Amino acid sequence: MKDAPTRALEDTRFLRALRRELTDVTPVWLMRQAGRYLPEYRATRARAGDFMRLCKTPEYACEVTLQPLARFPLDAAILFSDILTIPDAMGLGLTIDEGVGPRFKHPLHEPSELRRLGIPDPETELRYVTDAVRLIKRELGGRVPLIGFAGSPWTLATYMIEGGSDREFIRAKRWLYGAPEAMETLLELLVEATTQYLNAQIAAGVDAVMLFDTWGGVLTTDAYQRFSLAPMQRILNGLKAGTPTILFTKGGGQWLERIAATGCSGIGLDWSVDLAQAKRRVGELAALQGNLDPAILRAPIAVIEQEVDRIMDAFGDGSGHVFNLGHGITPDIDPEHVAAMVARVHNYRRPKDLRR
Amino acid sequence: MKDAPTRALEDTRFLRALRRELTDVTPVWLMRQAGRYLPEYRATRARAGDFMRLCKTPEYACEVTLQPLARFPLDAAILFSDILTIPDAMGLGLTIDEGVGPRFKHPLHEPSELRRLGIPDPETELRYVTDAVRLIKRELGGRVPLIGFAGSPWTLATYMIEGGSDREFIRAKRWLYGAPEAMETLLELLVEATTQYLNAQIAAGVDAVMLFDTWGGVLTTDAYQRFSLAPMQRILNGLKAGTPTILFTKGGGQWLERIAATGCSGIGLDWSVDLAQAKRRVGELAALQGNLDPAILRAPIAVIEQEVDRIMDAFGDGSGHVFNLGHGITPDIDPEHVAAMVARVHNYRRPKDLRR
Repeated sequence: MKDAPTRALEDTRFLRALRRELTDVTPVWLMRQAGRYLPEYRATRARAGDFMRLCKTPEYACEVTLQPLARFPLDAAILFSDILTIPDAMGLGLTIDEGVGPRFKHPLHEPSELRRLGIPDPETELRYVTDAVRLIKRELGGRVPLIGFAGSPWTLATYMIEGGSDREFIRAKRWLYGAPEAMETLLELLVEATTQYLNAQIAAGVDAVMLFDTWGGVLTTDAYQRFSLAPMQRILNGLKAGTPTILFTKGGGQWLERIAATGCSGIGLDWSVDLAQAKRRVGELAALQGNLDPAILRAPIAVIEQEVDRIMDAFGDGSGHVFNLGHGITPDIDPEHVAAMVARVHNYRRPKDLRR
Repeated sequence: MKDAPTRALEDTRFLRALRRELTDVTPVWLMRQAGRYLPEYRATRARAGDFMRLCKTPEYACEVTLQPLARFPLDAAILFSDILTIPDAMGLGLTIDEGVGPRFKHPLHEPSELRRLGIPDPETELRYVTDAVRLIKRELGGRVPLIGFAGSPWTLATYMIEGGSDREFIRAKRWLYGAPEAMETLLELLVEATTQYLNAQIAAGVDAVMLFDTWGGVLTTDAYQRFSLAPMQRILNGLKAGTPTILFTKGGGQWLERIAATGCSGIGLDWSVDLAQAKRRVGELAALQGNLDPAILRAPIAVIEQEVDRIMDAFGDGSGHVFNLGHGITPDIDPEHVAAMVARVHNYRRPKDLRR
């Protein structure tokens, strides 16, 4: 039997929307909502010293996770962490510096180096993550659901092989096309590690999980299916039954039917996707999350409001939509603009003929 | 009345394919086929001194345009030039350095600076381009068609405003969302300049023209329609009647129906697009050009051949396909791999049940 806060959580806008049930207003949260655009985040980060210390100290991770919720009436919290915690725990040595982005000290140069990789135990090597989840859940006190997350195996593999981020993915694609079996071995290892990691987050209390497939969109359709979507499908198959799931492939707008066929609860959409068309294509199969161009947050508030309305109008009927950006919020955004965006979503009243 | 070489050119594989007529084998050319992966190109460039001198000296431009044709039995030549010649002629001061990419000395900082821009006269400020076309046409002697090209107005605008290439397009999107009328003024100026420029290339002898919309894919569907596709449509409307045209929006796979509706002869496809699906969607409306992932050219030749076959199989019936890469060839590719790719396309025999 579930305890009271859990039952109440299941009835929140965010989790109802992921089940495509009607909500009073459309739920909203933002990718990277705990981040550098918030002065209080920058203050905590300065105290922590560097990004990885922020991630690896549950008290700091909890603090920054809750900061945006104190400012804006957001409908979900998302664990503050990084998609690269798994490769870091595998021994690749992650550093994340402002302006440089993530780098690994020991990237994978050759398929033969796969031997040195093991599956990290989520309750020891990645204990800082599950500790953060437990702490955040306690602090949230059942107010809003908490989203856990991981990177997609393909996305993790690109960083592990490139040592960071490369515009052309030269090394990763060399593996993919030149040594596809080695690539599949690596992906399978990441499937197993990610499944355990997300199940540990779920056991620690997260209410939904999201897979970030940041680089799936750089693949051909066939390669996406085999090297990105199939591994994500295997993760979904291995998660604790009943957990709401969101898959987000940036640049995946052409593949929505395939993504929906995984049985995920929700699909994250980048801003290039036309939401009305996406709803026609897969709206009967999954909730849709998105998809304001984060660049719009730099425009005057009147423009932001107009673009929020355009997205809300495009979705039409309100069940099954989680409002979000099409990608993470950037550090230069004025928090007042975020406040205006969130308010506009919650105050939106759909035209009568679009109501259920 | 057309002269003999022109009549013969109209019957070449490339121009037949753009008219969706049957060809003996599928025509093939490569985006950026005259480029750094060829040692003879690097030698000419070293003699020229720098990239812009290579572009601006018709003899050099002609020499490098013809180099790939001497090596490989390609079915089209493409003018060696750069998409940024127009903004350069508008006074923005283009430099292109290896490893840095294109930079403008005088980017557009403010909408008020639009005043300083005029429309370059193609036969004076851009005379080096039309001179190169005339020289190349003479040297080609009617062997294969010559493709002229320009950048899309939106793509040019991003470079002009950013001063170069930015991953987030912060400044260009600030104009787009914050000052859309100024953006449209700039785009209209580029429409007019590009129409005159391409008509001058056509008058000088190019047999087809292509618009490169490198950055259309970073837009929302609505913004793509208004700020990228609509200006390209206005250019097409202003071109000399009967000129074969190809539109290529990188990341535009979701918008093929809209692109086809412009009435272009062919649509360039990046590698993320499934060719079989693209053919079902718009194959009755336009020829399709593409779409091998250029990264595949780094793989062993057996893999390249397998991927060529996969694309040829996907297209099925052979009329209306121009084989190409999904984006430009990169400098690190072994020319032997290109030779193998071209040979495989020409030697491909489609399974009997796919023949007309």
